[in-house]
Amino acid sequence: MPLPKKASESHTIMTEMVLPNDTNTLNNLMGGRLLHWMDICAAITAQKHAHRTVVTASVDNVSFAEPIKLGNIVTFEAQVTRAFTSSMEVHIKVSAQNLSAGEAAVHTNSAFYTFVAVDQSGRPIEVAPVIAETEEEQSFFQSALRRRQLRLVLAGRMKPSDATELKALFGESGE
Amino acid sequence: MPLPKKASESHTIMTEMVLPNDTNTLNNLMGGRLLHWMDICAAITAQKHAHRTVVTASVDNVSFAEPIKLGNIVTFEAQVTRAFTSSMEVHIKVSAQNLSAGEAAVHTNSAFYTFVAVDQSGRPIEVAPVIAETEEEQSFFQSALRRRQLRLVLAGRMKPSDATELKALFGESGE
Amino acid sequence: MPLPKKASESHTIMTEMVLPNDTNTLNNLMGGRLLHWMDICAAITAQKHAHRTVVTASVDNVSFAEPIKLGNIVTFEAQVTRAFTSSMEVHIKVSAQNLSAGEAAVHTNSAFYTFVAVDQSGRPIEVAPVIAETEEEQSFFQSALRRRQLRLVLAGRMKPSDATELKALFGESGE
Amino acid sequence: MPLPKKASESHTIMTEMVLPNDTNTLNNLMGGRLLHWMDICAAITAQKHAHRTVVTASVDNVSFAEPIKLGNIVTFEAQVTRAFTSSMEVHIKVSAQNLSAGEAAVHTNSAFYTFVAVDQSGRPIEVAPVIAETEEEQSFFQSALRRRQLRLVLAGRMKPSDATELKALFGESGE
Amino acid sequence: MPLPKKASESHTIMTEMVLPNDTNTLNNLMGGRLLHWMDICAAITAQKHAHRTVVTASVDNVSFAEPIKLGNIVTFEAQVTRAFTSSMEVHIKVSAQNLSAGEAAVHTNSAFYTFVAVDQSGRPIEVAPVIAETEEEQSFFQSALRRRQLRLVLAGRMKPSDATELKALFGESGE
Amino acid sequence: MPLPKKASESHTIMTEMVLPNDTNTLNNLMGGRLLHWMDICAAITAQKHAHRTVVTASVDNVSFAEPIKLGNIVTFEAQVTRAFTSSMEVHIKVSAQNLSAGEAAVHTNSAFYTFVAVDQSGRPIEVAPVIAETEEEQSFFQSALRRRQLRLVLAGRMKPSDATELKALFGESGE
Repeated sequence: MPLPKKASESHTIMTEMVLPNDTNTLNNLMGGRLLHWMDICAAITAQKHAHRTVVTASVDNVSFAEPIKLGNIVTFEAQVTRAFTSSMEVHIKVSAQNLSAGEAAVHTNSAFYTFVAVDQSGRPIEVAPVIAETEEEQSFFQSALRRRQLRLVLAGRMKPSDATELKALFGESGE
Repeated sequence: MPLPKKASESHTIMTEMVLPNDTNTLNNLMGGRLLHWMDICAAITAQKHAHRTVVTASVDNVSFAEPIKLGNIVTFEAQVTRAFTSSMEVHIKVSAQNLSAGEAAVHTNSAFYTFVAVDQSGRPIEVAPVIAETEEEQSFFQSALRRRQLRLVLAGRMKPSDATELKALFGESGE
Repeated sequence: MPLPKKASESHTIMTEMVLPNDTNTLNNLMGGRLLHWMDICAAITAQKHAHRTVVTASVDNVSFAEPIKLGNIVTFEAQVTRAFTSSMEVHIKVSAQNLSAGEAAVHTNSAFYTFVAVDQSGRPIEVAPVIAETEEEQSFFQSALRRRQLRLVLAGRMKPSDATELKALFGESGE
Repeated sequence: MPLPKKASESHTIMTEMVLPNDTNTLNNLMGGRLLHWMDICAAITAQKHAHRTVVTASVDNVSFAEPIKLGNIVTFEAQVTRAFTSSMEVHIKVSAQNLSAGEAAVHTNSAFYTFVAVDQSGRPIEVAPVIAETEEEQSFFQSALRRRQLRLVLAGRMKPSDATELKALFGESGE
Repeated sequence: MPLPKKASESHTIMTEMVLPNDTNTLNNLMGGRLLHWMDICAAITAQKHAHRTVVTASVDNVSFAEPIKLGNIVTFEAQVTRAFTSSMEVHIKVSAQNLSAGEAAVHTNSAFYTFVAVDQSGRPIEVAPVIAETEEEQSFFQSALRRRQLRLVLAGRMKPSDATELKALFGESGE
Repeated sequence: MPLPKKASESHTIMTEMVLPNDTNTLNNLMGGRLLHWMDICAAITAQKHAHRTVVTASVDNVSFAEPIKLGNIVTFEAQVTRAFTSSMEVHIKVSAQNLSAGEAAVHTNSAFYTFVAVDQSGRPIEVAPVIAETEEEQSFFQSALRRRQLRLVLAGRMKPSDATELKALFGESGE
């Protein structure tokens, strides 16, 4: 198993400008284009941790609350939160800004993508464990287990009754 | 409120060919590109139901089990499952096929996207209720409520204890 | 020679959304972009019939009567009409729709593309004959011969006087 | 009616490099991409003649005899051949060359595109007649009538028996 | 005149992945694609300083010593160095890395782009002076004058004999 | 060493139409996109001279005086000016035109790109010397030496005091 690496070593910043072809008829960035950019940024982040080719294994629920406008600058910040054998969870945070109008950046989305490190023939390969240092990194590290169980339950690969971490979240009788 | 419409009226088929720029260094389709295509197909589906401009509100957990190769043909089939005032849930099913090798199509992914219908100034506007006819349509219609609660809980807009439909899934007290 | 296959087995539906970069300064879809999409849809259709790599051999006269606007949804429906040894003629029908305005789909174009099935080194290879079932399929199957002769005459590879099927169309002496 | 203009004033040269996304799995340029480039080059040519916005009205039969390879340089040369009130026929000639291998340019395709000049609201508007000077220009000018009749017959807008120019081409009994 | 702003407030990081269409037949990133990305990153940087729409005024000599390979991650870091009334000079530093091979990032290029801030009708508009804090920022601030004179001389807008800062660089009499 | 070749044999014309995604929020062509097109045109020109794969070695200072608008036709004309062992300098001239408004073409930019011819493994390889025939070609041939020295000085690969050609331009003592 590779030696543990700090979460912060995978820190990645990506910046994009919203061009006409990225927008719908209201001149707002289309959700799919944003998901595409988030995947690229998160994949680079996972590659920084694994030093291997990585493939997207899943993306968790993403909601789009704030419209992002044509001409806006979109900034992506991502970091590995935790590794599970050959898979890595990446947290990614998106903000958008109308720079020419002098407006402040607005947080628009967050998401968790999961990647698997693979060798040349596409077979999964073990990656370094993640060292969480800051309070935020530790919080993401802890909750990664709960998100992983939710993914497994939603994919039909774990029985809800076995998802012990999720129980803390849903349906605790008497609470 | 617009008159109810059949789910099947929104049925949409989209076909794409995987080109070099869509692939990673293993010649596999990148996950983000697939999410982008799914969003376009699902948006067209929601537009067919609403006859309005629609904006992506969320995408539920998507997992990528099967690699899709360069040159493969990717087929998307989507249909509205249920409407909630101004929002619509769309189910989308993806399959891929290496046509020139004579292989059969392989189901690769499924996902639920949610869209909101908006007027010219971007304000939400009511859409037609969905009429579920077939057994599969009725099953998607029923379970839409549970998925909607999960989205609201994950977005921090509903307390887990109020998510009565989810309780049926997780943490049944006494079990 | 491969066993005959039904025309309907090659049936393909493709859907595209007209984005800004696809349009001219009147916000209408450019003809060349439409020809490009039609070629991709027709190539997929021919691949479904041949289960081989296919290359475009020709496109017949296409006329553009109806403008297609920015934001419209363009739907392509294609099917193989007839095979000649290693070549296949594909009929493709295009319609466009302004979904957000609730307008009905409008038929905008039809075209015939011809493809040749090739092996790995690019050499032509025999394909399955086409079984035409419906009345429309049989009509396309019959007229394919006439269109093929017109192609050969226009390419200077057949003498007009040998184009017996075309004579039925043009210049019958005595009429 | 605008004053007549020389065909040569519309002469246009366009050059493209074949990139990975333009090719199929044999690393050959896809036919649809070529049709797209030809349309752009021909549209620029028609604009040079009309000094108006132009829209594609039709493309005549195009055949693809020579494969064009990844990395090749494709050269397009186009010129207006004749004008009919508000429409213009453009002749376009394509050649391809593997420059880094020191090969000579190979003529790969020719085509005739027809454009209509339009005003700001998209209505057809009269264009200058074409002055054909060289022998080749005069030959294209003469035969333009025959091609126009074929287009009208194929579009079902002229009876074959009225296509007097075409009779010279097809079915003259005893000749 | 807007209040002076720190150079570091304009700091921008952009990350790109080299895809097949960005490369030549040796699978190396094409120089023009890199210049395009550098311009986008530098424009965002200038917008951060000016809070205005900006247009590229010039790019100084750029040399390409290190090939950047397909699949590499390219990182751009840019910062405003100095402002002259309505124009801003941006320094941009490029590095590339083969992440999946675990290689270290390699510095590949540096460049200076100049932008002009403009109002809605495209007229130049004054921007904030730049506050250089670190030693490196001060060094860039100082040498900006020399680079500006070189630009003006090369553009034929300043006589070499008036370029006092350049004299310090070239042709010192007596040396 | 390959036999000398005329500069005019490398003459290349490229034409592009400015599409929405090429423009900023003022609907003007972005500088980086223009640099990208110039590089492609210049690379084709160098390939015509060398009949080898070429890689961009440098671009000299480029200034952008004239805005180029959405929908404009941009014409690039390029020619090799001089060769130095394995490198070639290419002069490229850009003009833009609003064809549909009947405006004349406007010269917008000029630039010098330098390319190196390489073999299959990317190693520099000797190219043919350039024969300058016209007065303009001879003038570019002469001044190529001065531009080369400026490049070397700016890249820190030549001492300013050794740049004898540049002295003729800058800092003439006593003048």
